[in-house]
Amino acid sequence: LAGVDPALIRHFFGDKATLFATTVADRTTIPEILVASLQGDPDTVGARLTETYLGLWEEPETRRVLLALVRSATTSPRAAVMLQDVLGSRIRVTAAGNPPDNEQMRRVGLAGAHLFGVAMARHVMQLSPLNTMAYATLVSEVAPTIQRYLTDTHHESINRTRRR
Amino acid sequence: LAGVDPALIRHFFGDKATLFATTVADRTTIPEILVASLQGDPDTVGARLTETYLGLWEEPETRRVLLALVRSATTSPRAAVMLQDVLGSRIRVTAAGNPPDNEQMRRVGLAGAHLFGVAMARHVMQLSPLNTMAYATLVSEVAPTIQRYLTDTHHESINRTRRR
Repeated sequence: LAGVDPALIRHFFGDKATLFATTVADRTTIPEILVASLQGDPDTVGARLTETYLGLWEEPETRRVLLALVRSATTSPRAAVMLQDVLGSRIRVTAAGNPPDNEQMRRVGLAGAHLFGVAMARHVMQLSPLNTMAYATLVSEVAPTIQRYLTDTHHESINRTRRR
Repeated sequence: LAGVDPALIRHFFGDKATLFATTVADRTTIPEILVASLQGDPDTVGARLTETYLGLWEEPETRRVLLALVRSATTSPRAAVMLQDVLGSRIRVTAAGNPPDNEQMRRVGLAGAHLFGVAMARHVMQLSPLNTMAYATLVSEVAPTIQRYLTDTHHESINRTRRR
């Protein structure tokens, strides 16, 4: 960044965490990989998204990127908002022609929040037994719930028929 | 900490994030509040835990504590392990007489990871639409899934009967 006024950088990016997160978010192909996993048979979309997302956390290279983004977002509210903007618009562009409506955003948001929490518990908080569970077991534990969120059947209670 | 050798502090606590997290974790009553919500009618335990946990994030005072613990855990792996130890043992002591087995730990872990992810998406990552959803709506969206995890009915697929 030689020759660039640091005050100008701060004006646009606010802080080091935001600058870093912007750079990483601009370069990673993670949004495209996640959107691609949503294509295909709707009956197995939950398993595909779960495998793909948790699989990105299993690979050391992509785990480093995800960890860096999480650290930026938790230490800087501005980085969190920027990430949401950059990654959100990348997802919208990738899903172009088939842009999600508010209802779909709500379902994807709930599914994403769940997957994110599982990844955080396993890889960041090191929460037992999630941190030692085999990857395939973890996927099979979580995928049915992700399928329910994505297909809007998550309100069903046990031993009851669909509420809507 | 006047008169205390900084090297001694580092030996026991590793870094500032861990020292801070240890202090906060020792003083908060959040583990006791969460364990208390698990008591009572098993048919509504999912709603009680969801309301209680997400409610702690709605209150500015407890949100500050939770945010501080999350920041410590994401910036320092040592703080994450320490938090898991301290809060885990606090939960085990509180639940004494009724200590959870491995199977229950797995279910509570999945439920907890889900709730944690929702709180992170809403309060840290500011993920739309979770960040603007009414608290009561959010609880009603998430509680059925937490109920399924806690009662081990989360493997059920849509339009299928219980697998076990």
